[in-house]
Amino acid sequence: MARLRSARVGRLATVTSEGRPHVVPFVFALVQDGTALLVYWAVDRKPKRSSRIRRLRNLEANPAAEVLVDGYDEDWGRLWWVRGAGFGRVVESDAERNVALEALGAKYPQYRAEPPDGPVIAIELERITSWSGAEEDR
Amino acid sequence: MARLRSARVGRLATVTSEGRPHVVPFVFALVQDGTALLVYWAVDRKPKRSSRIRRLRNLEANPAAEVLVDGYDEDWGRLWWVRGAGFGRVVESDAERNVALEALGAKYPQYRAEPPDGPVIAIELERITSWSGAEEDR
Repeated sequence: MARLRSARVGRLATVTSEGRPHVVPFVFALVQDGTALLVYWAVDRKPKRSSRIRRLRNLEANPAAEVLVDGYDEDWGRLWWVRGAGFGRVVESDAERNVALEALGAKYPQYRAEPPDGPVIAIELERITSWSGAEEDR
Repeated sequence: MARLRSARVGRLATVTSEGRPHVVPFVFALVQDGTALLVYWAVDRKPKRSSRIRRLRNLEANPAAEVLVDGYDEDWGRLWWVRGAGFGRVVESDAERNVALEALGAKYPQYRAEPPDGPVIAIELERITSWSGAEEDR
């Protein structure tokens, strides 16, 4: 969980309406809300690109999502990954949007300088799996 | 293309038979064969885990795959990614398997010490898209 929380970048996988996989790098914040574990990300101010918006279209048609963080090392005994599977939805309430933007700002100074103004998306994680090559980290 | 070729780790996204996304970190080698561009990866000698084998099961049911490599930097103007979309298949011929293992061994000394003995998978890329925050790298 600490690795999922602290990773600076993750990869988000969704499924297109044609049933093809789609994966993008993304910045996110992990928020625990009672028993719920949420990954928040936001569409930022950069020029909107089709590939970014595709994530949203995909989630509307099929909300299933996976979030992956991993560590690479040339010593393959030190590889690790953490993966969360869940379902995505666009955040509608102002209160939840504020929680998400606060968490994103707390993690990323880049967002404090220039908060994202696009939609905020929540991925509610239902299952987390992880693996580490180093015994001590398991 | 240079970034896709040289990246030490990528992420491979597939779709499960239930239509859910699945994403894993993976090591791979890029091979150009005439006009075809192939990403090869191999199941290694480590204990077989369900999550590893799942990639194979997914590709059998739905060969669509995406491969992502990306670079993170705290200067978000330096972010970049390269993504290849295509279709995966298990390599059946010894000749192609040898090509793949040679490419993997050339890229990863780890594989020269201990070649993978499991199935080799080819992902034939049909479409490559990329993005870079830094103009000079576009």
